[in-house]
Amino acid sequence: MSTHVFDQAITLTPEGDNRFRGHTSPAYANMVGPFGGITAATVLNAVIQHPALLGEPLSLTINYCAAVADGAFIVTALPVRTNRSTQHWTVAVTQPGANGDEDTVVTATVVTAARRETWSLDDEPMPEVAAPDQVQPLPLPEFSAWLKRYEMRPIEGPVPSVWDGSGTHSRTRLWLRDAEPRQLDLAGITGYADAFFPRVWLRRAKFVPAGTVSMTVYYHAGSAELARCPVGTWVLGQARAQAFRNGFFDQTAQLWSEDGRILVTTHQIVYYKE
Amino acid sequence: MSTHVFDQAITLTPEGDNRFRGHTSPAYANMVGPFGGITAATVLNAVIQHPALLGEPLSLTINYCAAVADGAFIVTALPVRTNRSTQHWTVAVTQPGANGDEDTVVTATVVTAARRETWSLDDEPMPEVAAPDQVQPLPLPEFSAWLKRYEMRPIEGPVPSVWDGSGTHSRTRLWLRDAEPRQLDLAGITGYADAFFPRVWLRRAKFVPAGTVSMTVYYHAGSAELARCPVGTWVLGQARAQAFRNGFFDQTAQLWSEDGRILVTTHQIVYYKE
Repeated sequence: MSTHVFDQAITLTPEGDNRFRGHTSPAYANMVGPFGGITAATVLNAVIQHPALLGEPLSLTINYCAAVADGAFIVTALPVRTNRSTQHWTVAVTQPGANGDEDTVVTATVVTAARRETWSLDDEPMPEVAAPDQVQPLPLPEFSAWLKRYEMRPIEGPVPSVWDGSGTHSRTRLWLRDAEPRQLDLAGITGYADAFFPRVWLRRAKFVPAGTVSMTVYYHAGSAELARCPVGTWVLGQARAQAFRNGFFDQTAQLWSEDGRILVTTHQIVYYKE
Repeated sequence: MSTHVFDQAITLTPEGDNRFRGHTSPAYANMVGPFGGITAATVLNAVIQHPALLGEPLSLTINYCAAVADGAFIVTALPVRTNRSTQHWTVAVTQPGANGDEDTVVTATVVTAARRETWSLDDEPMPEVAAPDQVQPLPLPEFSAWLKRYEMRPIEGPVPSVWDGSGTHSRTRLWLRDAEPRQLDLAGITGYADAFFPRVWLRRAKFVPAGTVSMTVYYHAGSAELARCPVGTWVLGQARAQAFRNGFFDQTAQLWSEDGRILVTTHQIVYYKE
């Protein structure tokens, strides 16, 4: 068992068919409930460690129904359809509610696939940016524990330092890695996919409450490719919004390995308060 | 009841709590099973006509687990979590399997929201393109019935006419509308979201089997905004891939109203054969 704080946070204990028990980690706490990326990685982990798993994760959609309360939770992962080379999963995270029922706090679907090598091509080249050691680590806001788990070096579109409504675009580019070095894997990059601060903060240079409602991750790299990256490697992240409308904006984002391979494309729809 | 062929195809009859009965439509048949966009619109329709609905669709993720067989199917739509202004749904489409069980052929999650007007901004401007009446309608391949239900005028990246491996990019821009004029609505644009031909055909100029595995749609426009568009209006669609890897590629796409408002951003992960 890894002693890395990330692996501790996503640890699940099997508890009967298709059920796993987990516990929130103070190390990945957000302002309300846990960092969404650690919840997504935990959901993925239930599928990865399920005895019926076929292949590896290809896509994940997670819907944040309610704040996960500090404490224990149950992840239920059901393989609802197994084909020759793909498998479809539905996942739910539940916690005891006020009335004693199990409340659903997260729903998710995961597709896994047994992939084989084919003609392949990256069609979104990594942007040309300064190397990580040439970029200043920008001090991150102190308001959430999970931010201390990552090292971020923003190349473009950092968290605004002045909240004066002067924003002109929504694109962030940054180098990203675990603060405590960790081997890249599918759970780890799932956390990275949710590591961008809300686009509305950048676009408006205005600090307003915001929270992810639904996130989708497409895994272009498999675990063998990720395992070939050295421990402590950087990942380049790029995120931007396409529309802010009536309380919700979208985010479209990419993650590349330090040597320029696309690892993940990911999207989310995010609530924002006026 | 509308007599438009699209509305007939997505018609559902309530059959007990949370259950709706539908039937595949020959008018929207694809090579194997129905056009994915009509299935997605049918799933959305179950949520829209559910008596417990709060607000309007904000996001949809649909996973195509297996080909939907010609004939009847059941859509089960469950409101698993209702908050003050958002609601989370899980949806499944089932059909009788060979052994008499109900086989799951589609899984989906939908988030609906009661939205109010806020500061809003389109951050992905509509590309400057020729007006629909200045673009030639390209004859579409005849291999699928559903293609006859749409009128498409490709501005860039049409279906290749020569399959010689000469592809250089994966971006298609096209004007799109129902062949039989129909008022834009949330179900209708859900169909549009899946109307792009597989990016791998364009990128490689090579005809290989391909099929959507999972699609996500984010609805930036609500039904009132769509209802203000004139019947017979065009929608500008843009789609491109970011990565083709080991049997699966992604597609990221946008739909704009004819007057340049972003209506939908949408993503999918698609299987392709070498």
